[in-house]
Amino acid sequence: MTPKVAQFLDTHQPATPCLVLDLDQVEANYRSLRHVLPLATIYYAVKANPAPQILGRLTGLGSSFDAAGIEEIEQCLAAGATPAAISFGNTIKKASAIARAHALGVDLFAFDSEEELRKLAAHAPGARVYCRLMVVNDGAEWPLSKKFGTSVGQARLLMPLAAELGLRPWGLSFHVGSQQTDPLAYAKAVGEAAMLFTDLTRSGLDLRFLNLGGGFPTRYRADVPAPEAFADAIMKAMTDHFGNDLPDMAIEPGRSMVGNAGVVSSEVVLVSKRNPDPEAPRWVYLDIGRFGGLAETEGEAIRYRLTTPHDGQATGPVVLAGPTCDGADILYERSGYQLPLALRDGDRVAIETAGAYVTTYAAQSFNGFAPLAEYYI
Amino acid sequence: MTPKVAQFLDTHQPATPCLVLDLDQVEANYRSLRHVLPLATIYYAVKANPAPQILGRLTGLGSSFDAAGIEEIEQCLAAGATPAAISFGNTIKKASAIARAHALGVDLFAFDSEEELRKLAAHAPGARVYCRLMVVNDGAEWPLSKKFGTSVGQARLLMPLAAELGLRPWGLSFHVGSQQTDPLAYAKAVGEAAMLFTDLTRSGLDLRFLNLGGGFPTRYRADVPAPEAFADAIMKAMTDHFGNDLPDMAIEPGRSMVGNAGVVSSEVVLVSKRNPDPEAPRWVYLDIGRFGGLAETEGEAIRYRLTTPHDGQATGPVVLAGPTCDGADILYERSGYQLPLALRDGDRVAIETAGAYVTTYAAQSFNGFAPLAEYYI
Repeated sequence: MTPKVAQFLDTHQPATPCLVLDLDQVEANYRSLRHVLPLATIYYAVKANPAPQILGRLTGLGSSFDAAGIEEIEQCLAAGATPAAISFGNTIKKASAIARAHALGVDLFAFDSEEELRKLAAHAPGARVYCRLMVVNDGAEWPLSKKFGTSVGQARLLMPLAAELGLRPWGLSFHVGSQQTDPLAYAKAVGEAAMLFTDLTRSGLDLRFLNLGGGFPTRYRADVPAPEAFADAIMKAMTDHFGNDLPDMAIEPGRSMVGNAGVVSSEVVLVSKRNPDPEAPRWVYLDIGRFGGLAETEGEAIRYRLTTPHDGQATGPVVLAGPTCDGADILYERSGYQLPLALRDGDRVAIETAGAYVTTYAAQSFNGFAPLAEYYI
Repeated sequence: MTPKVAQFLDTHQPATPCLVLDLDQVEANYRSLRHVLPLATIYYAVKANPAPQILGRLTGLGSSFDAAGIEEIEQCLAAGATPAAISFGNTIKKASAIARAHALGVDLFAFDSEEELRKLAAHAPGARVYCRLMVVNDGAEWPLSKKFGTSVGQARLLMPLAAELGLRPWGLSFHVGSQQTDPLAYAKAVGEAAMLFTDLTRSGLDLRFLNLGGGFPTRYRADVPAPEAFADAIMKAMTDHFGNDLPDMAIEPGRSMVGNAGVVSSEVVLVSKRNPDPEAPRWVYLDIGRFGGLAETEGEAIRYRLTTPHDGQATGPVVLAGPTCDGADILYERSGYQLPLALRDGDRVAIETAGAYVTTYAAQSFNGFAPLAEYYI
């Protein structure tokens, strides 16, 4: 955690569970990404954490925004963003949401099907649209399944159709999966998109925009490549395929912008040794679980680093679970977590690098528990 | 759906997504369960749906309540329940929650470990306590894992310890898993608990209480045994093991009390055919998904029945997903769902038998989407 977060926790001892997030770290992350990829426009993935304090800070830095829904668009505008800085990146949008976004001045929309394209033509006539391609998500710890994106073959038909429908076919996008740890995943996807991009341009479409999506990783338990490694792989692939004639590049970082800025402070509710076998793990129940904000622990996909007041002392294996009566509310059973033997109920456990995908993901009142509190400092 | 729910939806056409729940059906469910198991006290599992209208109706009928946390206890008291009608059934409780419940007059607590027992002795001195046993969950569609309960061997040591610590060892409990479709699961668990119960009584403990937990199923896509089948299996097992000297029986229905009383009304956001293969399923995206309230579709565990305005017409295979940018927000991919070929965006889809485990489970603002609205009629 950053020194500012550590000091806040130490001074205020806020009731748990809560998120404490250092806005200066968000700014540092933005500047660092800007520095290594100066040619790419940064569209912050609002869904990672839509706190007005974050949106305001990023607006001040000149960031653009990737919105998942009309509510997020309204949050960006309320934080001072201009409509021109907003991309409506969800390929699944209600007609009413498209119309409202368009009325608010948003002019850049994603799609991946003919059905969505026709909705855009009807409710956001003349808007710029980009087609999302489905690419392999190997190397991603939170892959995006087959829910989004279309094939190169389909996109080749849909982009001219966009023009016929009175829209402006603006470009292509892809997403290599969230917490993507392999820089080459971007390089491969750039290659696939670039071939189609060039073909479509040659066939007469005036494409300008290549959106490389998000997925940039943050460091949880294991080291991840530095932003420079991703930037190098991306820029090499871009110049390999486009030479000097680069399209406008966009990236949509979420996790890598806010993840390491935040810490979730939680309290141990119970440490129980129900199985007398000395080899059996203790069960450690925290006051936050999968439904209280740690949704990304599903399938033990995102493995947070934990710190306790007893770190450095002898440890033993644990199963980690949330405080609810739900049997599915288990955080880690198979990921080899060890915690100090001295850990007791009432101790505070810090869940490190938890600034992304925790606040809005918390259930509103699961088993009666209120969502975690939030502090932006 | 009940005629009252159908009429409400028809008349009011409420904005989607929303839950509409018929309180008369809750009352009918309560009366039916009371009728088939007259010797068991019904502790409604508040977590299934803690709406004040439900708690109020059940209080009027004389129901008791199983609470997962201090907030649920306060909700029951606010709805008119007496502290004596409340069991604090979560085996994982903060010391502060135990103390507050005790101060409010709650006197019945679950535990499954020595650590929790010592917390109860410290913060609810003299209270009645019951030990939760771990039993097999075969036959349950939403099993409860190894998160709760202890072995018969451990319970045999913990119950006398409760007395030594100044608590009143009151009985035993188990849970056969939620949406349990096999009546014999209860019979087996009763047998296991009864042997320990009898042993402990013979050794001098004055046990009075056997809590058979919840798990009673509601009808989703497939038929389930009637309440009578569960009641018969339970009462046969009870009399086989206890003869005429039955302990006080408790049951904790949640799903079976409110499930069939409610319908979630949703809207189709997009029907997309991204794969041109004629055999490939269409993707149907609803305005509610796994994180908007349908949490129990995780792993496709609970398979809701869906009705559409085009029912009776030709159908084809679909994948069902939620409206968010999250790749994990898929409802059904492998469960063989078929929906009418005429289905279009803007159509309403009713998610039947959805009165349990949807409202409080909704994320507070996932991707910016507000939790579903609720109507109790």
